[in-house]
Amino acid sequence: MTLKIALAQLNLTVGDIEANCQKIIRTLNEARQVSADLVVFPELTVTGYPPEDLLFRQDFLAQSERAIQQILAHSHGITAIIGAPVQHQGQLYNAALALRDGHIVAEYHKQALPNYGVFDEQRYFTAGQQTQILSLKGLQIGLTVCEDIWQEGIIAANRQAGAELIVTLNASPFHAGKVHQREEVIAEQVKAAGIPLVYVNQVGGQDELIFDGASFALDQEGQLIFRAAEFTEQLNWLEWTDGRLQTSYIAPHYQPVVSEYQALILGIRDYVRKNGFKGAILGLSGGIDSALVLALAVDALGAEQVEVVLMPSRYTHDMSVEDAVLEADALGVKHHIIAIEPAVQAFNQMLAPVFAGSKTDTTEENIQARCRGVLLMALSNKQGKLLLTTGNKSEMSVGYATLYGDMAGGFAPLKDVSKLLVYEMARYRNTLSAVIPERVIIRPPSAELAPDQKDEDSLPPYDVLDPILALYVEQDKSASEIVALGYPRPAVERAISLVDRNEYKRRQSPPGIRITPRAFGRDRRYPISSGYRGIAELD
Amino acid sequence: MTLKIALAQLNLTVGDIEANCQKIIRTLNEARQVSADLVVFPELTVTGYPPEDLLFRQDFLAQSERAIQQILAHSHGITAIIGAPVQHQGQLYNAALALRDGHIVAEYHKQALPNYGVFDEQRYFTAGQQTQILSLKGLQIGLTVCEDIWQEGIIAANRQAGAELIVTLNASPFHAGKVHQREEVIAEQVKAAGIPLVYVNQVGGQDELIFDGASFALDQEGQLIFRAAEFTEQLNWLEWTDGRLQTSYIAPHYQPVVSEYQALILGIRDYVRKNGFKGAILGLSGGIDSALVLALAVDALGAEQVEVVLMPSRYTHDMSVEDAVLEADALGVKHHIIAIEPAVQAFNQMLAPVFAGSKTDTTEENIQARCRGVLLMALSNKQGKLLLTTGNKSEMSVGYATLYGDMAGGFAPLKDVSKLLVYEMARYRNTLSAVIPERVIIRPPSAELAPDQKDEDSLPPYDVLDPILALYVEQDKSASEIVALGYPRPAVERAISLVDRNEYKRRQSPPGIRITPRAFGRDRRYPISSGYRGIAELD
Repeated sequence: MTLKIALAQLNLTVGDIEANCQKIIRTLNEARQVSADLVVFPELTVTGYPPEDLLFRQDFLAQSERAIQQILAHSHGITAIIGAPVQHQGQLYNAALALRDGHIVAEYHKQALPNYGVFDEQRYFTAGQQTQILSLKGLQIGLTVCEDIWQEGIIAANRQAGAELIVTLNASPFHAGKVHQREEVIAEQVKAAGIPLVYVNQVGGQDELIFDGASFALDQEGQLIFRAAEFTEQLNWLEWTDGRLQTSYIAPHYQPVVSEYQALILGIRDYVRKNGFKGAILGLSGGIDSALVLALAVDALGAEQVEVVLMPSRYTHDMSVEDAVLEADALGVKHHIIAIEPAVQAFNQMLAPVFAGSKTDTTEENIQARCRGVLLMALSNKQGKLLLTTGNKSEMSVGYATLYGDMAGGFAPLKDVSKLLVYEMARYRNTLSAVIPERVIIRPPSAELAPDQKDEDSLPPYDVLDPILALYVEQDKSASEIVALGYPRPAVERAISLVDRNEYKRRQSPPGIRITPRAFGRDRRYPISSGYRGIAELD
Repeated sequence: MTLKIALAQLNLTVGDIEANCQKIIRTLNEARQVSADLVVFPELTVTGYPPEDLLFRQDFLAQSERAIQQILAHSHGITAIIGAPVQHQGQLYNAALALRDGHIVAEYHKQALPNYGVFDEQRYFTAGQQTQILSLKGLQIGLTVCEDIWQEGIIAANRQAGAELIVTLNASPFHAGKVHQREEVIAEQVKAAGIPLVYVNQVGGQDELIFDGASFALDQEGQLIFRAAEFTEQLNWLEWTDGRLQTSYIAPHYQPVVSEYQALILGIRDYVRKNGFKGAILGLSGGIDSALVLALAVDALGAEQVEVVLMPSRYTHDMSVEDAVLEADALGVKHHIIAIEPAVQAFNQMLAPVFAGSKTDTTEENIQARCRGVLLMALSNKQGKLLLTTGNKSEMSVGYATLYGDMAGGFAPLKDVSKLLVYEMARYRNTLSAVIPERVIIRPPSAELAPDQKDEDSLPPYDVLDPILALYVEQDKSASEIVALGYPRPAVERAISLVDRNEYKRRQSPPGIRITPRAFGRDRRYPISSGYRGIAELD
């Protein structure tokens, strides 16, 4: 007996049930043309993942029901395993449905509901209680959904129930290194149970999440016998013959920095596309962050969809303007130059009576940043283009950014990219073509909001700051643990106290693309009003 | 046997374990002075509620452990039941701990972990599996925490285990009508089980949540025999004699609008205090929303802590400026007048070359709103005062607000207050003293960003809009259900399509005070990138 199994690694849109439904039907037709017997789709194919509180809407669930009926009408002569929310007796399940010849021939309810990190599935779903085997041409296929196969026991239970092959529908979000972790953990589970597995992942950007695809298959020894490409839609197929999955193509993994770069491109492209923007704009300062965001935007959208604005002030070095123009020209992007001085002067004069007698402080720096925010938002509003912010994760961590100033914008591509990684990415991008002038990479970083200002005047150097931030923010290490690891105590104190007191800024920041195991967003939920001070234990 | 039970309805600060610990010890000393045998504290007394992802930090949990040791040292001759997170074998529990004479004499783990609405407890805690009875002077007391007593079975299980009295530690957030619902639901449970109950609630504002206190006690028939005041810290006591709780004082409930008004005052006061601001500022437009926010701010903080700025433009009517000055004067608040024209003109001139040939649209309106945002933030930054935004829930729903303009600010008191409720509250406030000129209440609402602009030019009238929004946003009704209820289809279409497409604005809005069963915040989690269109089913 030979069975042809297609893996539909699709880019779906949350909430756009009609479009997702049409894509599923098109994919079924394509699979039929290569005589596939079975097509496996990602988790919650019909609604996209994660649909969040749309799942509380009965009209939304009813629309999903109708889409399933539509797909059923296109299931003649082929079996589709799709993901969808299904209701039974007032309970909602995260289901895998096997459709064939107009009938639902198997229905499985996800048993392991993740409720950590970026996941809130226990908010919506009731956990299934049993395995479900689909019989196809005599082959017994165990149905599972995502988290199920990360836990002990569910693969083994399927084997006990007679499964000869595990099929799993996924919406597994990307972070750096996740693709390796995923294959390793699941290979261990497969090896222990001695049963082959076909893993289909979603691909695409959804607000702060990136789904990286990289669908794969393992034989019963846990050996990788197939891998789909990362970060792109694909329809692949595998053969089950002679009682086993036959070895197929194995797409290579991207190298670390390349992989994150690809994730950011996909994130920008999908946010622009799924939200209907007519391209993107950004402020180009001559610094490294905006230079990288420009390169990412152009790689994601094409030069003709991107526009930049240079907004020099009295503190902007000529070199910054020159470099910014070089960057725009190197990438073939249209640029505007609007000096902010007239607006800054207007505000300073308007505020003079109220501020009489008070000292100059960061207020005046913020006014400059906010004038730029007003200009960029005006261009964004007028043209229907998405304003990209250029701040990085290091800055977001310590609040080194102006709310409604450089934080103004719809999407923050570098929100989860540390400053050190910004440099790595810039260097990587220049290996493809020289688009970021070398001196932009070499110059000491500066916000240029005051005379001869440098980031290091008020922050530890980034090669000290970034590891401290990763330990504190991503790994929940305490101040004393970080000091014990050898980081200078003043730098630890400075970094941690700034992280603690800037939660209010992060709460109003635009969404960004998650590329680490813990981004500022769904997977770091901190109170704003909080008496917690990480440095208190050092006293 | 007589037992004196004290109820400590405290205002705690999330994360400020040291301050919470000192407050617990002070309260124990006070209770000792009135010869109380037992003091019952709110849920998670030591950490405050909800501590959110601070619970993932081992240093935070260790600090909480140390606080418990400190409190134990003050437990001689008295029993304290406090709430705290406790760890056992890698699992975290939401616990009620009974402390007496330096020992933990009972430890209960919350069994029912809410994971809906504003609650995420399954993200953090493992559910307890058993009841826990505390024996005090021969009285058998069943320990429970919040959600436990909303569910069938746990009170009854306590009774079966020999409990003669249920004690429950709570952090039950306010919304309009919740205080009645709470007493009714729990009275039903108590009546069914035939066992008296003592309910202690937290009080205070914590970011978007308000805890309203209103602690109470019920006899075994479910009759209310005690109620503490709402919205204020209190230490009360009850007597258990002759085998029953003795009737005590019953504080009256606030009337509906008064209750919401009190919630907003508490919310503003605690946000300012817990975040260390030196008062509050706001922009006063002469419209009803800012007039109400001013009254709330003054009632919360006192006139000397509040400052207002009038920022007229060419579209501002003289009447608006006059009324704003009247409002500030009526409340004894300092005001500044800063005309925005110079900044608006500067921006228009700076943008003229880029905008040449394009039509005037909302871009120009947004520039005005953003100039005001820059001015207000400059004053906030310079003085360390919290900038309050003045937008209401109706505006937040339909996106009738400018991001980084009138949405700029640290806290949004009216974020969950519909426009119709704004009017009700304004009228209520004027019954205490006339602070909002009558014509401000009567004039048709206008953003005054264009000549003779009125809200109703682009929105349905609020008496139509607000009920539609409540049905769609708070009750998840579908477009066709709302039309079937008699609302005009064009208004339904307009309202719903605006709600759907403005999620991105809400995501960057400041936190506000939750007073309905579903606010924009923790309890409405919608994707930004979303193809869902509520009006699609009307086609």
